[in-house]
Amino acid sequence: MSAPGPLVLNTVTVRDRWTLAQCIEGCARHGIPGISPWRDKVAELGLTVAARQIRDAGLFVSGLCRGGMFPAADAAGRAAAIEENRRAIEEAQVLGAQCVVIIGGGLPPGSKDLAGARAMLHDGIAAILPEARAAGVTLALEPLHPMTCADRSVLSTLAQALDLCEEFGAGTGIALDVYHVWWDPDLPRQMARASGRIAAFHVCDWLVPTTDLVFDRGMMGDGVIDIPGIRAMAEAAGFTGPCEVELLSRRWWAEDPETVLPLIKRRHAEAC
Amino acid sequence: MSAPGPLVLNTVTVRDRWTLAQCIEGCARHGIPGISPWRDKVAELGLTVAARQIRDAGLFVSGLCRGGMFPAADAAGRAAAIEENRRAIEEAQVLGAQCVVIIGGGLPPGSKDLAGARAMLHDGIAAILPEARAAGVTLALEPLHPMTCADRSVLSTLAQALDLCEEFGAGTGIALDVYHVWWDPDLPRQMARASGRIAAFHVCDWLVPTTDLVFDRGMMGDGVIDIPGIRAMAEAAGFTGPCEVELLSRRWWAEDPETVLPLIKRRHAEAC
Repeated sequence: MSAPGPLVLNTVTVRDRWTLAQCIEGCARHGIPGISPWRDKVAELGLTVAARQIRDAGLFVSGLCRGGMFPAADAAGRAAAIEENRRAIEEAQVLGAQCVVIIGGGLPPGSKDLAGARAMLHDGIAAILPEARAAGVTLALEPLHPMTCADRSVLSTLAQALDLCEEFGAGTGIALDVYHVWWDPDLPRQMARASGRIAAFHVCDWLVPTTDLVFDRGMMGDGVIDIPGIRAMAEAAGFTGPCEVELLSRRWWAEDPETVLPLIKRRHAEAC
Repeated sequence: MSAPGPLVLNTVTVRDRWTLAQCIEGCARHGIPGISPWRDKVAELGLTVAARQIRDAGLFVSGLCRGGMFPAADAAGRAAAIEENRRAIEEAQVLGAQCVVIIGGGLPPGSKDLAGARAMLHDGIAAILPEARAAGVTLALEPLHPMTCADRSVLSTLAQALDLCEEFGAGTGIALDVYHVWWDPDLPRQMARASGRIAAFHVCDWLVPTTDLVFDRGMMGDGVIDIPGIRAMAEAAGFTGPCEVELLSRRWWAEDPETVLPLIKRRHAEAC
């Protein structure tokens, strides 16, 4: 029997209702031990203030969301993305985050060159890897669901992310979100291959029907993903880390976090 | 340089406007040499009438849509699905169709057992394969986009479909729709593996943004799929067959087929 691991609130889950300061206070009050902030909310509060408040509240920081998004139409755009990622690594270090979550980014506007965009992702990781290693911050490569390939992530499968990890080695790892990988017929084989490389484990659920390609993720237990089954595969691959709840959902954004957080705690215990 | 192959109208493209009789007459009049009907429209017209009208119009039948959908909550449901597929094979034979397009079907209602549903798909194919071979009708396994995994198709990747083809051999093949596979990082390798197994090649396009998980497919050239690139891979794998246009799209269903068909002909020439 697998165990879900300590609970982490990814702050996007309550993004329309709470500032980062409210998230920090709310996690502490509701007994949620970990937090995973987004960079815009950190900037809003101020990096050093955010780091101090999180530390004072006794929370750990699983990851900083998010870096990556390297593909761009021209060299200036690609250089700007690399600089932005270097700042994300610095921020993660200040926050004491275990990783920066790296997503692929989509095709540059007007482009149909998927292989080219994937090469830009590869080259972007190569460019920031020295800074990540120096900072002791893992680049947690997160494959996103193939339905986001055109406009959000050309990093589409666990196999593809593991190929990058194997090439780049130290300083890279995997952010595994059950939402993005649950459908994959190759998942058991790839999870075995992921041994020692899983840096973050994210949960939510796949609703039937799903009415939006980005903002209709379900609360754990409300959908069809066998979350404990995937958790067990992660544990078999040596992962015993936290369970991070990341809901991008118009339905849940409309609710009061004071009711959402207790529900997350219940579902973390019952459905993860 | 690849060639798009003879044009086929999959009748779902105009499903809200035209009966099968209108599709047959329209294809002949617009100079579209092939047709791929859906079973409900065949039943509406009557199987023998449909077969005669298609033959009299001088059209070829690329495939019959569709079979598969084997997973079910109980044994009676699974047996009924197998019987339905046997009827589809008989109809395909009467129509002179080169294949029956087989989709996976989704998870049975309430189930989270993805491996179990995939086993039902496997067993369903095994059950109908003798009839398919006897009829000379290829079971064209069509992987559908992973976003349809929960409710439409547990057959999610070309690799998974090819594994089934390799196991079952004669009588099985692949229906390759660019919409379902364009995102796959493993596509070049799997397309090489598909050599001699491609039974049907379907086109449409991936729109940015995509607003619906099922009914927002784009007209070829309006999206981000490198259709000629995938066609070239299919040709390198030995496929020289037709190019079937299958648009499930509320936007195009709202248009008069008398304007949609000429546009399809232009885009077939320019963007495939």
